[in-house]
Amino acid sequence: MQITVLAGGIGGARFLRGVRRAYPDAQITAVINTGDDITLHGLRICPDLDSVMYTLGGGTDTERGWGRADESWRVKEELARYGAEPSWFGLGDLDLATHLVRTQMLDAGYSLTDVTGALCDRWQPGIRMLPMTDARCETHVVVQLDGARRAIHFQQWWIKHRAELPAESFVQIGLEDAKPTEAVLSAIADADILLIAPSNPVVSIGTILNVPTMREALRASAAPVVGLSPIIGNAPVRGMADSCLPAIGVEVSAEGVGRHYGARSADGVLDGWLIQSGESADIPGVSVLPTPLLMSDDEATAQMVRDAFAVAGLTSAAR
Amino acid sequence: MQITVLAGGIGGARFLRGVRRAYPDAQITAVINTGDDITLHGLRICPDLDSVMYTLGGGTDTERGWGRADESWRVKEELARYGAEPSWFGLGDLDLATHLVRTQMLDAGYSLTDVTGALCDRWQPGIRMLPMTDARCETHVVVQLDGARRAIHFQQWWIKHRAELPAESFVQIGLEDAKPTEAVLSAIADADILLIAPSNPVVSIGTILNVPTMREALRASAAPVVGLSPIIGNAPVRGMADSCLPAIGVEVSAEGVGRHYGARSADGVLDGWLIQSGESADIPGVSVLPTPLLMSDDEATAQMVRDAFAVAGLTSAAR
Repeated sequence: MQITVLAGGIGGARFLRGVRRAYPDAQITAVINTGDDITLHGLRICPDLDSVMYTLGGGTDTERGWGRADESWRVKEELARYGAEPSWFGLGDLDLATHLVRTQMLDAGYSLTDVTGALCDRWQPGIRMLPMTDARCETHVVVQLDGARRAIHFQQWWIKHRAELPAESFVQIGLEDAKPTEAVLSAIADADILLIAPSNPVVSIGTILNVPTMREALRASAAPVVGLSPIIGNAPVRGMADSCLPAIGVEVSAEGVGRHYGARSADGVLDGWLIQSGESADIPGVSVLPTPLLMSDDEATAQMVRDAFAVAGLTSAAR
Repeated sequence: MQITVLAGGIGGARFLRGVRRAYPDAQITAVINTGDDITLHGLRICPDLDSVMYTLGGGTDTERGWGRADESWRVKEELARYGAEPSWFGLGDLDLATHLVRTQMLDAGYSLTDVTGALCDRWQPGIRMLPMTDARCETHVVVQLDGARRAIHFQQWWIKHRAELPAESFVQIGLEDAKPTEAVLSAIADADILLIAPSNPVVSIGTILNVPTMREALRASAAPVVGLSPIIGNAPVRGMADSCLPAIGVEVSAEGVGRHYGARSADGVLDGWLIQSGESADIPGVSVLPTPLLMSDDEATAQMVRDAFAVAGLTSAAR
């Protein structure tokens, strides 16, 4: 069985652990957001890819929730002593080795897809990890800053400003020239089920869906598409989706996000939509299932995945 | 007073501390070998420049004799876990920050001369540090390896093989297209005295002298040229010059190296040559002065520098 998951970083990684646990014999492919990518100090950094790789490879700092276990920050501190900006990015020493290998391979002409595969040779995440595209398309956030309207890199907004500057809009620079890789298109076309992880609907899932032809590929797949709401009550389970949704005019609720993704039978992508138990959401054309959505541990997350299969009518085939 | 010194890395750095101590009010310029430079893991590494910068800036590990004080090796160990070769190069975490800043500036189009100046803004070595050239020309060593004759990078020979593979010859790849920078040519032309540090006569000083037009620039300068022997008895004071000299057919002795540099009045560059007390050297056309040559501390080294001034007949002007 082939399961293909659209996912962002930290939440996506946690969700993918649940997928792996629920269906260990399935071929699981993650199509991962690369809109958060950034080049700093000459290093190509792919936060979402690395979060998934480290988490599924058993190398994440589980207490901090991001980055490498047993991390140190000596290079970063030394760069700051040189006055090398930016100093706000959390560039760990172990993490830096990943960026060095990646940057060198990219400079040598390998695609990000191939580089990711090479890095996974070491980490053995147990799933196939695919960047959504090999093209560079980085999310920028339009904000008011120092008395002017500016587009700053997503990481600058997210980390330096802690998403506290109101976002007027999000712009993926380079997106119009990007396209899904052949590997991504195959993973979507050949899937038995397509899952949309409860990742940030704007800057993670939204960016993936906005890659030209991506939405059409999902709509054309024979597989059911089931999404999981990242919003419980009126707040994101984690991350700062509530700082992002207003900028695109979407209500911070499971219904709001579900309607934003839309029904495949209309102009959207969803066949099914999982929301938190006890809530309700009216999304015309989409099967909505209330079920516990807190990814408190891998087993709880695995149950969410099984529930997604149930909504898609695939439960018996899968078990 | 302007003092210009041709120097390699660790020995050169130690010598330059003595120059700075002997003539603290002089404008001291070091023309530094870049033939040892190498690109590893995508980082541009300039071992001799960094040895001088760290040593004169007070950041060297004085016990180990090279690299940064309080150094750690986390990135290097992590690169090895990725199987990223080479693993034999001692790439420290603090050192790596220097390489990141340098690589990024070079990629942005700055010359190595400008980059070195920018790095020195932090380190304040108290002298002006100039790479011998802005061109890339890396020393390779011709050896017998795995049953074949091969040219390997100097660092591979020096560090991985500890200079134990007999060197058949040394080749600076790119040297024919290199030239001294304008800053180097001015520092040579405008000097009141030109000193040749007791650095490796083949792979440090030899490389500097082999930059096209460098030798002519020295010979054309009005300043006296005084060298200091790196050989005491029949062994180098430090480093592995005895592994290098035979490859170019030069006897491992103060006389051998002095004759190799040669008298300016003939076809060489020297006016004066300092050798260890109690030794003798016959170098036609060169004033030879036996004097203590062990750089046991800065004051001993400073006295060597004063002696070099004496040989050049500059003592009274300098003191």
